[in-house]
Amino acid sequence: MTIAILGTGMVGRTLAARLAELGHQVSIGTRDPAATGARAVDEHTSWDGWLADHPGISLVSYAAAAAAAADVVIHAANGASAIEVLHAAARENLAGKVVLDVSNPLDASTGFPPALFVENTDSLAERIQAAFPDARVVKSLNTMNAALMAHPESLAGGAHTVFVSGNDPEAKAVVCVLLREFGHTDIIDLGALDTARGSEMYLPLWLRLFGALGHFDFNIRVVRAAG
Amino acid sequence: MTIAILGTGMVGRTLAARLAELGHQVSIGTRDPAATGARAVDEHTSWDGWLADHPGISLVSYAAAAAAAADVVIHAANGASAIEVLHAAARENLAGKVVLDVSNPLDASTGFPPALFVENTDSLAERIQAAFPDARVVKSLNTMNAALMAHPESLAGGAHTVFVSGNDPEAKAVVCVLLREFGHTDIIDLGALDTARGSEMYLPLWLRLFGALGHFDFNIRVVRAAG
Repeated sequence: MTIAILGTGMVGRTLAARLAELGHQVSIGTRDPAATGARAVDEHTSWDGWLADHPGISLVSYAAAAAAAADVVIHAANGASAIEVLHAAARENLAGKVVLDVSNPLDASTGFPPALFVENTDSLAERIQAAFPDARVVKSLNTMNAALMAHPESLAGGAHTVFVSGNDPEAKAVVCVLLREFGHTDIIDLGALDTARGSEMYLPLWLRLFGALGHFDFNIRVVRAAG
Repeated sequence: MTIAILGTGMVGRTLAARLAELGHQVSIGTRDPAATGARAVDEHTSWDGWLADHPGISLVSYAAAAAAAADVVIHAANGASAIEVLHAAARENLAGKVVLDVSNPLDASTGFPPALFVENTDSLAERIQAAFPDARVVKSLNTMNAALMAHPESLAGGAHTVFVSGNDPEAKAVVCVLLREFGHTDIIDLGALDTARGSEMYLPLWLRLFGALGHFDFNIRVVRAAG
């Protein structure tokens, strides 16, 4: 598939590298490619070095990445900037495409653990769908850290669960193909996009588990009786 | 231990029966014992019949149950009436005691799935603690259905997780003793009582899982790397 990743943080880079490794055509979108390219990825790596290590991945503007994406646009920036980033990617570049949102509505202004800036009777996923009615929005992967999103088998052989929410069954099916390629084996389709209220509101528990366990190499498995 | 259960619904009856079976001295509190006693438990069972089937369990007023409880008072009524029920049990009967809240702040007026009536920057557990500052409030068991609270081994041999939150370490230790007697083997202490925001905000995901799976014989297991 031809896939755009919006966001250059840990989540965006991890998903981009994994998708490229799986043979997909990947571009990473950022606000200002020249400015991002001039920054360091981390203390050991420049963006030029990172791109050299990941041949085939291009770093372009949000709009160029979304325009090039024939199949899937992944929103992997902070939840707080989701609507703004997707507007920068441009409505016409999202129309009809699968827009996979893996972010969470965390309000960084509230200290740690952060509160949610939308919850209970609404969700970030629904806000994105409302702002971009022609996009086929799917929520998934937001309930685990980036390494587990891309390599679920790295924890307990992958014996843990990922959730999917969305109004378009075909769009969810496309996302499920990617999830299975990543290695996810226990995928629960929660239903329509408003069920993302459930997976987003799990984040406060995730944050307390992070606090109690002292690391984020964990995920939940839904243990259930046969249906 | 001598334990009071406040609430005569499925959760209260299930916990009362299990605690009595384990050898504890149990009383069930209700607003009006005569009125409750005159009602049916279900279409096959009267309250008199239920009490006859559970020798040693008494059905008394909220205040009488809480006064008799030497060790633990369990709030097992609806979250929406928690504060009112605990006021009926009377502040002086709760002072210094472990008050285990297993309820959830579900707002029944919002249809299905219900929204929460407190969330994000507060929790029902914290509201109870604020209203009864002399009680030693612990939150636990609210993340699963009543049958799994009392008999975790009935699902996957008990290979799933229960959470504990509270400000008083000794009170949490008392609750953990009961949890282990029930059969819980994976108990995660999330920390202070405000971490109940996490376990209470999991409920919206629980409700969507109930919708997707079509039954509530499930619970989550926190799969994690060694700490």
